[in-house]
Amino acid sequence: MTTRPPLSPTRRSTPQRSANRAVADRAALDAVLDAGLICHLAVTVDGAPRVLPTGYGRDGDTLYLHGSTGAASMRAGARGMDVCVCVTLLDGIVYARSAFHHSANYRSAIVHGTAVPITDDDAKSHALRILTEHLAPGSWDYTRTPSRKELAATIVLALDLTEASVKIRTGGPIDEPEDVVAHTGWAGVLPLRRIWDTPVAATDLPPGIDVPDRIANRPDPDPQSTGDRPVFGSK
Amino acid sequence: MTTRPPLSPTRRSTPQRSANRAVADRAALDAVLDAGLICHLAVTVDGAPRVLPTGYGRDGDTLYLHGSTGAASMRAGARGMDVCVCVTLLDGIVYARSAFHHSANYRSAIVHGTAVPITDDDAKSHALRILTEHLAPGSWDYTRTPSRKELAATIVLALDLTEASVKIRTGGPIDEPEDVVAHTGWAGVLPLRRIWDTPVAATDLPPGIDVPDRIANRPDPDPQSTGDRPVFGSK
Repeated sequence: MTTRPPLSPTRRSTPQRSANRAVADRAALDAVLDAGLICHLAVTVDGAPRVLPTGYGRDGDTLYLHGSTGAASMRAGARGMDVCVCVTLLDGIVYARSAFHHSANYRSAIVHGTAVPITDDDAKSHALRILTEHLAPGSWDYTRTPSRKELAATIVLALDLTEASVKIRTGGPIDEPEDVVAHTGWAGVLPLRRIWDTPVAATDLPPGIDVPDRIANRPDPDPQSTGDRPVFGSK
Repeated sequence: MTTRPPLSPTRRSTPQRSANRAVADRAALDAVLDAGLICHLAVTVDGAPRVLPTGYGRDGDTLYLHGSTGAASMRAGARGMDVCVCVTLLDGIVYARSAFHHSANYRSAIVHGTAVPITDDDAKSHALRILTEHLAPGSWDYTRTPSRKELAATIVLALDLTEASVKIRTGGPIDEPEDVVAHTGWAGVLPLRRIWDTPVAATDLPPGIDVPDRIANRPDPDPQSTGDRPVFGSK
């Protein structure tokens, strides 16, 4: 097993503020990308920034993105333009004694780079498997694989996970000492978490087909895991 | 009461695909923006797109964004550059019979425009009240308001909600008829929802201070509301 290189931030991938929230190892990047469900993809179209929600999936040190050939953002990415991808998990609202120190707990990963369009059918099928499995783990083996026509209608982009950064905020409010003394109200964190609800069958599903375990008991996204987070109270 | 103009999409704010998912009225825009908690802000820095999670708040037809004066993205916005803001609520994963028709249910709002920096202290305080109340409803009246130094350390941007678009996907999978017939597995939606967990007091909170009702009983974000959504099965 080869040792994976550390993240090699350039100027733009080096967080310029709240540097104590930055996490610089690949395991943290992988964890955020794997915990998220969708990303936000930013491209430049007609000279202006454009951002939209997009599906993604991680395969080792490659991030795959996909979208319709009709989407201007995907076509821009496919032309070899710079892209920026952000995956954010909002973990809670931080109630402080001052408005200024109100904050949010979150984990976010930002990836910069030039996306490479995947054009080979086999490589595209592989990428779509990664993308499908990210959205719906275990589903690929139980669904019809893409036809050539469907492959042709889909743009798949690959983005190298080299120029990336991770930021994590956790813990309670960091108030001014005089506010802590003077304030008589509550301060702390209201944690936010995401849960799967009861599956809803398609209206055209024949009767007698049970919800498979991989869906009925899909683990909730990004379970709270404080073990690998920075110490409580990081700002 | 004046009638608010409809959204006036330009080419870039007119969704180019899945047009049947596009919703063009301001009430839908307001609903998505009000249900979200954070946005993703895209700017162009050194000629490349950059996207990051950011706090926001809506005041009528104005969207406020804020961040540190140390953040390159905020400084770019404050220089009067084009920005693009996206708020996305992921509502569920759509399990289809084919990999190609796997999808996600979501609501998203995308706003394009040129951000205007708010420099006047009173106007900035007003905007910060909107921003704080979005993140922590009811908190402004119970927290210390920003000092002049804190105001100076904060960039607040205002973005007009004119050039905006809303997309909503709801309902089950839209499969190929032959896949519906041939497939013997389950298909449907696994809904995703966000809930607040039990509040966690700050470590420096004196004993005997109860969690206020506005925090302990804060309504969960974006409760499922199918009443104002497109018909079941929209693609």
